Amino acid sequence: MSVMNLNDLETPAVVVDLDRFEANLHKLQRYLSSHHIANRPHIKTHKIPQIAHMQTEAGAVGITCQKLGEAEVMADASITDIFLPYNIIGGKIARLAALMKRVAISVTADSAETVQHLKQAAQLARRNDGKPDKPLEVLVEFDSGMHRCGVQTPEEAAALARLIHATSELTFGGLMCYPNTATLDPFVRATRALLASDKVEIKRVSGGGTACMWHAHEHAELTEHRAGMYIYGDRATIKSGAMTQDECSFRVLATVVSRPTAERGILDCGSKTLSSDLLGLTGHGLIVEYPDAVIYALSEEHGHTDFSKCPTKPHIGERVTIIPNHCCPVTNLFDEIMQVRGDEVVGTWKVAARGKVT
Amino acid sequence: MSVMNLNDLETPAVVVDLDRFEANLHKLQRYLSSHHIANRPHIKTHKIPQIAHMQTEAGAVGITCQKLGEAEVMADASITDIFLPYNIIGGKIARLAALMKRVAISVTADSAETVQHLKQAAQLARRNDGKPDKPLEVLVEFDSGMHRCGVQTPEEAAALARLIHATSELTFGGLMCYPNTATLDPFVRATRALLASDKVEIKRVSGGGTACMWHAHEHAELTEHRAGMYIYGDRATIKSGAMTQDECSFRVLATVVSRPTAERGILDCGSKTLSSDLLGLTGHGLIVEYPDAVIYALSEEHGHTDFSKCPTKPHIGERVTIIPNHCCPVTNLFDEIMQVRGDEVVGTWKVAARGKVT
Repeated sequence: MSVMNLNDLETPAVVVDLDRFEANLHKLQRYLSSHHIANRPHIKTHKIPQIAHMQTEAGAVGITCQKLGEAEVMADASITDIFLPYNIIGGKIARLAALMKRVAISVTADSAETVQHLKQAAQLARRNDGKPDKPLEVLVEFDSGMHRCGVQTPEEAAALARLIHATSELTFGGLMCYPNTATLDPFVRATRALLASDKVEIKRVSGGGTACMWHAHEHAELTEHRAGMYIYGDRATIKSGAMTQDECSFRVLATVVSRPTAERGILDCGSKTLSSDLLGLTGHGLIVEYPDAVIYALSEEHGHTDFSKCPTKPHIGERVTIIPNHCCPVTNLFDEIMQVRGDEVVGTWKVAARGKVT
Repeated sequence: MSVMNLNDLETPAVVVDLDRFEANLHKLQRYLSSHHIANRPHIKTHKIPQIAHMQTEAGAVGITCQKLGEAEVMADASITDIFLPYNIIGGKIARLAALMKRVAISVTADSAETVQHLKQAAQLARRNDGKPDKPLEVLVEFDSGMHRCGVQTPEEAAALARLIHATSELTFGGLMCYPNTATLDPFVRATRALLASDKVEIKRVSGGGTACMWHAHEHAELTEHRAGMYIYGDRATIKSGAMTQDECSFRVLATVVSRPTAERGILDCGSKTLSSDLLGLTGHGLIVEYPDAVIYALSEEHGHTDFSKCPTKPHIGERVTIIPNHCCPVTNLFDEIMQVRGDEVVGTWKVAARGKVT
């Protein structure tokens, strides 16, 4: 595309400031490398193969995907090492078996049922071409306090590790949790103690989170970290203290399309652009030019904004720049992300793994 | 595609029960026709040209779109009468001018600034091929209580109507609001009284909303109704009383992928499937098989569910059926919607106008 000014983009649009983006990319890599922690970025944030390659070229050992569909897009784009920290079960095992033939893939389990399904996937991979495969690497997910998936106790983790270890089609890879919390090291050590007599080794300890990323080195047991949002940043990341507003490379451009009252303004971006994610924040995004404004409600295509606290107020047709609450769902709402340097639009990325729900 | 059973679909998936869907489609049409109110369904709910054609074939006078990009997709699919109740301004007027050449299009304005932009669009349409065009039909949006866009008083509405009427490139089409409320008739009548001496006629009065659809006939001034969700239904529609659970044709299929504790279950659908829209509801969807369960939190790919109130609890790998809080954003998260009759998948619809943010 020919060079275009930021102000010529139709709104709403998502722009990524490449200078900030590249700085973020290298800053986390340097930090994790300096602490000998493997960097395995989560691509759910960007869903863009070109960015995944930038991350591995900068030093990441591989990537993390949340769905098979994302992993398939990344494999198509020649990414070779993929971690899928999800219980892959049922009708999905055929796709996992196919992926085993194409890339180095590891997965997680938090139940014996999932281990049984993963065994079937590995058997299927073997049957598909008759060749003996490397065993499928399975990590045990444990609950570090989020109360999502994950085994609850070191005893359960050890039992599952033994089961995986005893399954010839699988290999026990280690432990995984999200996010990193104070429970990480004690949990890993307790599980290791339980496994000592079984000679089952915990090789990988994979943690994750952007909010907690600068504390990764405080977890002595952590061998690998999965962060997603660190390349972009958003309002939640700023609130967590992990990034500053100036470091956020990801912005939504919008236009004020209505000023129905002296205090109220309506933006041309609603939940179809910003998503409805609040993440505990007040309002649906930070308007950079009007930091005292509150996007207090969203329709799908309207951002309802209170400008009453702003000393000056925008006119109809004025363009504004928004840092959304949560960048990941915004990515999933856009087919294209615009790359900018300063005020120039220098390229576009297709969000190739957008909408891969299965 | 060959016939497939519902249970063979990978999850998460969105399915539409065609029997219910068709019943919903005709029920609203019959009701509005019987009251001589034009039906102009909002396609933001489905974003599927084939459904738009089913709606017009059933008797709708045309369709409603919320974004130019949606209108362009519908025009490409030979829909000929489109209402775009949005302030189209700035860089978008060229696209509006192009659409004026292809379909009967009407728009709204709630400010003199927007009227000025619409005038430029109409001038541009004329310049593009030198032929005199029909004037662009513009309705004035008024605020019926939602406090989104819209003029605040009949005086403002009348002033804007006069401005549109006095602009040769435009024609004043009438008044528009969302949703229909008790203020509708009084507002229209007061505006008409103010315009009486100007000989400016209010031809169309376009209201909208699925929650309020069965009350459309109570607004004597209403000439046209825009409902979107009536074909599908969702948890918010059930709560509003406008539809029953059995009438909801739109469901999300999901799988229980983890049972980390006796009470908790994790579904393979999170905010990337259900959206984060709460619409004042508790929880993120109704699980048809476990009505006492609460989807109390969502990650992007995980539905965190409390099954403690359920007499029986699901096993890992069990499939469940969810009525989401709000069907419209779910549509926008899927590339394809599956059509079912009973337990058979009989076809797919591509969500052709998905992700048209501009």
